[in-house]
Amino acid sequence: MTPDEFRQAGAEVVEWIARYMEQAGDYPVLSTVDPGEVRANLPPSPPRWPEPFADVLADMDRVVMPGITHWQSPDFFAFFPANASGPSILGELLSAGLGVQGMLWATSPACTELETHVLDWMVELCGLPDRFGSDGAGGGVIQDSASSALLVALLAARERAGGAAVLGRLRAYTSSHAHSSVEKGARIAGLSAEQLTMVGVGPDYAMDATALGMVMDADRAAGLIPFFVAATAGTTSSNAFDPVADIAAVAATHGAWVHVDGAMSGSAAVAPEFRFVNDGLDRVDSYCFNPHKWLFTNFDCDCFFVADRQALIDALSILPEYLRNRATESGAVIDYRDWQIPLGRRFRALKLWFVLRHYGVEGLRHHVREHVALSQEFAGWVEASPQFVLAAPTPLNLVSFRHRGGDAVNEAIRDRLNESGELYLTHTVLDGHVTLRMSIGALATQREHVERAWRRIEVVARSLAGSDPTL
Amino acid sequence: MTPDEFRQAGAEVVEWIARYMEQAGDYPVLSTVDPGEVRANLPPSPPRWPEPFADVLADMDRVVMPGITHWQSPDFFAFFPANASGPSILGELLSAGLGVQGMLWATSPACTELETHVLDWMVELCGLPDRFGSDGAGGGVIQDSASSALLVALLAARERAGGAAVLGRLRAYTSSHAHSSVEKGARIAGLSAEQLTMVGVGPDYAMDATALGMVMDADRAAGLIPFFVAATAGTTSSNAFDPVADIAAVAATHGAWVHVDGAMSGSAAVAPEFRFVNDGLDRVDSYCFNPHKWLFTNFDCDCFFVADRQALIDALSILPEYLRNRATESGAVIDYRDWQIPLGRRFRALKLWFVLRHYGVEGLRHHVREHVALSQEFAGWVEASPQFVLAAPTPLNLVSFRHRGGDAVNEAIRDRLNESGELYLTHTVLDGHVTLRMSIGALATQREHVERAWRRIEVVARSLAGSDPTL
Repeated sequence: MTPDEFRQAGAEVVEWIARYMEQAGDYPVLSTVDPGEVRANLPPSPPRWPEPFADVLADMDRVVMPGITHWQSPDFFAFFPANASGPSILGELLSAGLGVQGMLWATSPACTELETHVLDWMVELCGLPDRFGSDGAGGGVIQDSASSALLVALLAARERAGGAAVLGRLRAYTSSHAHSSVEKGARIAGLSAEQLTMVGVGPDYAMDATALGMVMDADRAAGLIPFFVAATAGTTSSNAFDPVADIAAVAATHGAWVHVDGAMSGSAAVAPEFRFVNDGLDRVDSYCFNPHKWLFTNFDCDCFFVADRQALIDALSILPEYLRNRATESGAVIDYRDWQIPLGRRFRALKLWFVLRHYGVEGLRHHVREHVALSQEFAGWVEASPQFVLAAPTPLNLVSFRHRGGDAVNEAIRDRLNESGELYLTHTVLDGHVTLRMSIGALATQREHVERAWRRIEVVARSLAGSDPTL
Repeated sequence: MTPDEFRQAGAEVVEWIARYMEQAGDYPVLSTVDPGEVRANLPPSPPRWPEPFADVLADMDRVVMPGITHWQSPDFFAFFPANASGPSILGELLSAGLGVQGMLWATSPACTELETHVLDWMVELCGLPDRFGSDGAGGGVIQDSASSALLVALLAARERAGGAAVLGRLRAYTSSHAHSSVEKGARIAGLSAEQLTMVGVGPDYAMDATALGMVMDADRAAGLIPFFVAATAGTTSSNAFDPVADIAAVAATHGAWVHVDGAMSGSAAVAPEFRFVNDGLDRVDSYCFNPHKWLFTNFDCDCFFVADRQALIDALSILPEYLRNRATESGAVIDYRDWQIPLGRRFRALKLWFVLRHYGVEGLRHHVREHVALSQEFAGWVEASPQFVLAAPTPLNLVSFRHRGGDAVNEAIRDRLNESGELYLTHTVLDGHVTLRMSIGALATQREHVERAWRRIEVVARSLAGSDPTL
C-alpha cells in the first residue's frame, strides 16, 4: 500500500469510525448472531490476488458488524466498561504507524521513556504512594491486563521467597471474591489448588483480614511459607474493597508480598474525593489498575506499579547475546522486557499520553464523577422500588441489585433485557443469589440512557411478575 | 472528542503516518538520544486542562521522534523485522475504534469467529498440517508473541503430564540455541534451571536429536518425567532449523509435548518452495509463527496452533460466575480467554484479515521471495569477499557473517555502522565468535538498500583495517 493509497484508505477508515461513534447506540447492544453465522459469510480460502480496500471495508459492515457486541454503546452496562476514546484510538493508530518494538530501551528510547514518564504522571494524577514512582526503588509499566499484572507480581513474590526450590511449600492467599485471574495466575506459576487459600469475606464481600492472619499463622506453624496475598480494591463481582491496610499489616509479619488489583476502581482516584480506593497502598508491594476500563484508553492498557523494581527484574530477566547492547550494559536505562511476560511490546504509552493531554486532569475527573453520580442515582431508584433491593453497597459506579422474586426471575429479567438489544447487563451470584450488575462507565453513557435502562428493567420485571401470580 | 473532532484529528494523524511512510528512510535508523533525553523534554506533571490535539501531534515530532529507532526504515537490518503495512495499520485502527473485548464468544462473536476463520486460512496459506485446523480436535489463536505461545504450550504440557503434583520431577528440553523465551517460560511455569536441559547442537547450530534422545532416556531411567520439548524452526541467533521430525519421534517415545517456534521463518511457508520450514510439523503438538515479523502485520500478532485444543483449555480455563453465559454453556462456541494468559483480548484478527486481502496469497509470496533473494545475493557478496566469511548457512533471509579480524573488529564494525545512522544491524555469538546478523525483511527494503549496506560494511571494515596494521 503506497503512502497515497494509505491516505485514501485511511480517510475512509477514519470516516467509518466517526460514523460508528455517532451510531454506536443504534445497534442491538448484544450481538444476536448464532454460533457459526459470521464464519458462514466468509470464503473458505484466503484470496489468491489482492482485493480493493473498498471491498474489505464493505465486509466490515456486511460480515463483521452483525457479530459485534457494542462495548462503546451508551447502553452497555455489562461486565466493566472498555472505553475507546478518540484520543486513545489515535494514539493506538500512531503506535501502529511507527511500528516500533519497545522490548529494550535501545530499540526505541522514546517508547520506554514516555512510558516511564506517563506512569510517573499517573502516580501524581491518582495520588498514589511515592514508592511507585521511578525516581526511587520502584516504578510503573504498562501491562496488557490486570491478569498479567497479577501474574508478574506473583512471580516476583515467588522468586523473592525462594523460587522453584521451595515451590511446594509456598502458600498464596486471596479472597473468595477475588477475580479469577488470581486462581489462573497461581496455576500458571506452578501452584496447586491447595496452595492458594480463598479467605472468607465479611458481610460486604470484603476480605476478612483477621481470618487471613489466622490462616497465615497456621500455615507458618505447619512449616509452610506464606508468600503472597492478592487483595482487591473494587471486586468484579460487587465492587467490594478489601481492607488493604489491615491485610498489609498481617502480611508484613510473614514477609509476604501484597499485590492490590484495582483494575476497575483505581481510575476513580483521579478525583480526590474517591481516593479511598488507594487506602493502604503505601504499604503494599505492587498495584495495578486499568485505564482501558475507566480512563478512556482503549484496550490494552493496565498500569502496574511495583515498590521494588529489582525484585521484578530478578524474576523475569534473561539476557541472551542477541539482545546485549551498550545502553543495557550501562545500567542507566530501563528495559521493559524484564518487567513483563512477553519479549516484544507495542508503544502503548502513546495512547495514554494522548488521553491525559486531551482530557486534562479536570476532564478525567469530570467523567468519572458523572459516572459515579449516575450510579448513585440508579442505586436510589433501586432502593425506592418495591420490586428490587440493593444486594451490596455502591461505593462507586457498580450497582448490585436483584428482584425480590428470586433467581429465576432475575435470570429472566437479564435475558429478556439482553435479547431486546436495548441494553446489555450481566450478573453475578452473591450469597447464593443471582444478582444483577449495572456497571455505569461507558464514555457515551448519559443520564437519559441510565434512566431509560431503569424504566426498561421495571417494565420487564412487571411483565414477568404479571405472568406469575406469586410475584 | 466529538465525532467531528475525531474526523479532523484522524485526518491529521493519517497524513502524519503517510508522511512517515515516505520519510522513514531519512532518519538515523538507530536513535541517537542519550538516556533521559526524551524525558527531559516532557513536563513533570500531567496537564490540568485539555490541550489542543495539534499540540500533541507537534510533540510527536518534537519529543518522540528523536527517540525513535526506525523499525520501518528500509535500512533496518537488526534483530528480526517488525513490519507494519498500511492494511495492518488500518485493521489495528478499526479494532481500536470498535473497542470490543473478545474474551468470550458472546462478548463479540465476530471477534472470535473471524479469528478462527483467518487462522484456518493460515493453515491453508502456509501448508500446515490439517491437525491445526479448527474442524478437527485442534485450532489456532492469536497470541501477543511467540514468548506467550511457548508459555501456554508449556503449561498445557505441564498439566497433561500431571501438573503441580509432579512438578519437581518434570523435565523440559530445548537446544542451546533456542530463544530466551524458553528459559523464561520454564521459569514462569515453576521449573528450576535444572529442570530445563539445553541440548547441544550440531555444526549448523541445529539441535542434536540423538543427544536429546539420550538425555530423555537417562532422565526417565532416573525416575524423572520428560514432558516437553521446545524446537525451533529458524533460530534467532543464526536461523538454524532443528530436525523437528526426528525430535518428534524421540519425544513420542516419552509422550512428551513438542512445541515448535517458527516465529521468524514460519512466514516463509507462504511460498511453496520454502515449505521445508514446516518439516515435521505433522507430528508435533503445537506450533507458532509471527505475522508481526515477516507477514506485514503490525505487532502484536503471533499465530499459535495446537493439535489438541482441549489440553490447552484444560490448562487455562477457570469459569467464574460473572463470565457464565448461555453460549459458553452450550459448548458450541470458542472462548479464546481459555487459550491465553490474560482474560481480555483485542480484535487482532482484523489486521491479519486486512493484510491477507490486501496482498492476496500471491502478493505475500512476492515479498517473501524478494527478501530471500536479496539475502542470498548478500550472502554471495560475503562469500566473494576476502575480508568476510559466512558464519552459518543462509536458508532464508538472515545472513550470519563475520570479519576475519576477530571479535573486536566485528564489534567495532557494528558500532560504527549503527552510530552512522545509515543502517542498523545487531550481532550474536556463534562458537564463541562475535557474528554480525544481516536480517532482510522490512517491507520498505529494496535491492538498493541492501547493496548500499554492503558497500558501507566494506568501507567501514576497510577503514578499521587501515587503522590496524595487523588486518
